[in-house]
Amino acid sequence: MELNGNRLQQRLEKLSEFTDPGRPWTRRAFTDRYTSAREWLQKEMELAGLSTRVDAGGNLIGTLAGSEPELGVLASGSHIDTVVDGGRYDGVLGVVAALEGVQTIIESGKAPRHTLEVIDFLSEEPSDYGVSCVGSRAMSGNLSAELLEYTNPSGERLGDAIQRAGGAPAKLTDALRGEDELAGFLELHIEQGRVLESTRTQIGVVTNIVGIRRYEIVVTGRADHSGTTPMNLRKDALVGASRIVERVSAQARELQPSNGYLVATVGKISVRPDAANAVPGEARMTVEVRSDSEERLVNFLEPLITWAEEAVCRRDELRIEVRPLSATHPTDCAKAIVDTVAKSATGLGFSSMKMPSGAGHDAAHMARLCPTGMLLVPCLDGRSHCPEESITMDDAINGARVLSRALLILDCATPKGAARGK
Amino acid sequence: MELNGNRLQQRLEKLSEFTDPGRPWTRRAFTDRYTSAREWLQKEMELAGLSTRVDAGGNLIGTLAGSEPELGVLASGSHIDTVVDGGRYDGVLGVVAALEGVQTIIESGKAPRHTLEVIDFLSEEPSDYGVSCVGSRAMSGNLSAELLEYTNPSGERLGDAIQRAGGAPAKLTDALRGEDELAGFLELHIEQGRVLESTRTQIGVVTNIVGIRRYEIVVTGRADHSGTTPMNLRKDALVGASRIVERVSAQARELQPSNGYLVATVGKISVRPDAANAVPGEARMTVEVRSDSEERLVNFLEPLITWAEEAVCRRDELRIEVRPLSATHPTDCAKAIVDTVAKSATGLGFSSMKMPSGAGHDAAHMARLCPTGMLLVPCLDGRSHCPEESITMDDAINGARVLSRALLILDCATPKGAARGK
Repeated sequence: MELNGNRLQQRLEKLSEFTDPGRPWTRRAFTDRYTSAREWLQKEMELAGLSTRVDAGGNLIGTLAGSEPELGVLASGSHIDTVVDGGRYDGVLGVVAALEGVQTIIESGKAPRHTLEVIDFLSEEPSDYGVSCVGSRAMSGNLSAELLEYTNPSGERLGDAIQRAGGAPAKLTDALRGEDELAGFLELHIEQGRVLESTRTQIGVVTNIVGIRRYEIVVTGRADHSGTTPMNLRKDALVGASRIVERVSAQARELQPSNGYLVATVGKISVRPDAANAVPGEARMTVEVRSDSEERLVNFLEPLITWAEEAVCRRDELRIEVRPLSATHPTDCAKAIVDTVAKSATGLGFSSMKMPSGAGHDAAHMARLCPTGMLLVPCLDGRSHCPEESITMDDAINGARVLSRALLILDCATPKGAARGK
Repeated sequence: MELNGNRLQQRLEKLSEFTDPGRPWTRRAFTDRYTSAREWLQKEMELAGLSTRVDAGGNLIGTLAGSEPELGVLASGSHIDTVVDGGRYDGVLGVVAALEGVQTIIESGKAPRHTLEVIDFLSEEPSDYGVSCVGSRAMSGNLSAELLEYTNPSGERLGDAIQRAGGAPAKLTDALRGEDELAGFLELHIEQGRVLESTRTQIGVVTNIVGIRRYEIVVTGRADHSGTTPMNLRKDALVGASRIVERVSAQARELQPSNGYLVATVGKISVRPDAANAVPGEARMTVEVRSDSEERLVNFLEPLITWAEEAVCRRDELRIEVRPLSATHPTDCAKAIVDTVAKSATGLGFSSMKMPSGAGHDAAHMARLCPTGMLLVPCLDGRSHCPEESITMDDAINGARVLSRALLILDCATPKGAARGK
């Protein structure tokens, strides 16, 4: 069964046209432009032969009934919303590839055993309401009533925005999928990093999606006049913060496991008073840790703080305060799906490597519901969430082929629930 | 001759009442509130027996004619404008103390030989027009036509603002004082640092006013997704910038002369994209160097950059760019005035120490015109440019007494121009 590469490419291009004028490529969830893009996508699904609906969580779902519906649903998809000034492929590729795969099955005339779903999840990117992965949260029971009350800068509730998007926030549990309803979920995505490109690998087989811990560290010294305060009378918060920035990077390198993933980043920093002629009295920064291991995530902070208490607080007479900002757990992909994706890539003659996904995805939520996996394709220079985000059409089609083949292999798996083995 | 300490204190308190409501202590140059404060001050000068005028540069000048006017003018003063949320003593003390000193001479019935001037310089603090020391620049020929065209955020030209303040920007050279017109200038100021307080010294005898060099350093790496970019593939601009921050501080300590002054500060820093989940691709910071030695000022940057090229650029594959922002030269105080201030302090039984002024002042501009000196009094915990700025009334009166005595000693100096010896 051969995919229609031209059709895949045309759909990627068509979706990119739904962008805020002068700001390529911007298609924010809940905007009229997003609604137009989804209307077009829904029509494409129907023309392909899928029945469509928007669930209570605002997810657009195209369905192809299977010959043995009691086997459960095999689903694939991603999202078509973008960040501001985002790219053309992040999320979009996963939706378009899933549709292409199911459409090719329809065109082959062979009915699948499982019911197949193509899902366009609502608002995966951080939304103006302060919540990301809105649709996959709703589908997996992770969108609380509290989150529905979050508002955007204009004061609109997230719940009301979901209603506008065609969902039914008052009956949100309708979106929740029951145990055993889904036999598996598989998401294709661009890597958003440079590992595949730098190792010249065609397919990344995701073994797990990292957990993320974020902290705010505030270093407090004393704000002083930069001209009248000799060096030995200073308590410079930025000098202390700089040591911590370096240490975060060094510690992540030191603790990097040979067989696992750990990164740590200070991505935001600000000082007060923030003037050329003032010794900084306060420095405020975020520390973010990501790992495929809950243990490594949990254990990163303590040695950092122990070190800082000696090297920053005691040595420079500074104070530090640490405040946890957020914490998500690492998510393992289902072994049966990981193996199927790897087998599918090999069967098609593609080079592949097992790797974690360092970015969060709808798949992390779907993993709470059913056996879940992901596959990644290279993107140019690791660029993502920016207009320059780019992939080759070969890589796009390769990814879609591996996805499609993996779904077919999973569809053939018997007996019911075989994909659930880990 | 004994000063009137109560009167000095009352004038300090009265001037502090001219503040924007709810923002103590804010009296920005060129505002109606500033104008009201100056009108009050002008009346106080006249009640004390001084003739007053506002010169073409907008400086308020109170004059007491001397018995030998051919000796030239001995002047003293400072400024009464404040920064936003500033203090009650920065600048104000120098004006009020000069007035108190001259008023006491008038009350003593003894006529001075030199003509004496009390000067309230226009807009010493960084103004909304991007220029500081507006009045002392005008008086010393350092306010160019270009600067007069600078505008505030509402679009008003500095020249027009000077006109509103009673000056005559079209005839600015009228403000310029001729060679030999001034026999000397002496400014009392709060220290704005902690050296006097920490050494329990009553009077700081300023030997020179530091020169200041400011640079912007931009470190460029590559902005990357913090989750998908392993540590070994990163070019983190903030990690490189942090090394530079530490190095600036360490180098200033290493190069600190045993008999001289050097400080260096990174007071501003920002990163892009400035997000918790992004490896910083760019870090931008100011580096400020202050010294009493032009040589030390000039020679600070090169070893820093040489070091950074190895430790930051080569090691971390980052680029750095350096852009000079501003440069002023160190200003020596006149030896005759330095000695007179020291002698005056000793004569009154006060502890004193020679020290540089790490802050810029109107005196730095006046030094282009005539023999110039400064004296400093302690302020609480070095705090300045903030509402908590505080001095004791004892220190205020001590400073005024030393100032007044020094002016009297200089007035007795013969022959004409004796103060010009260095």
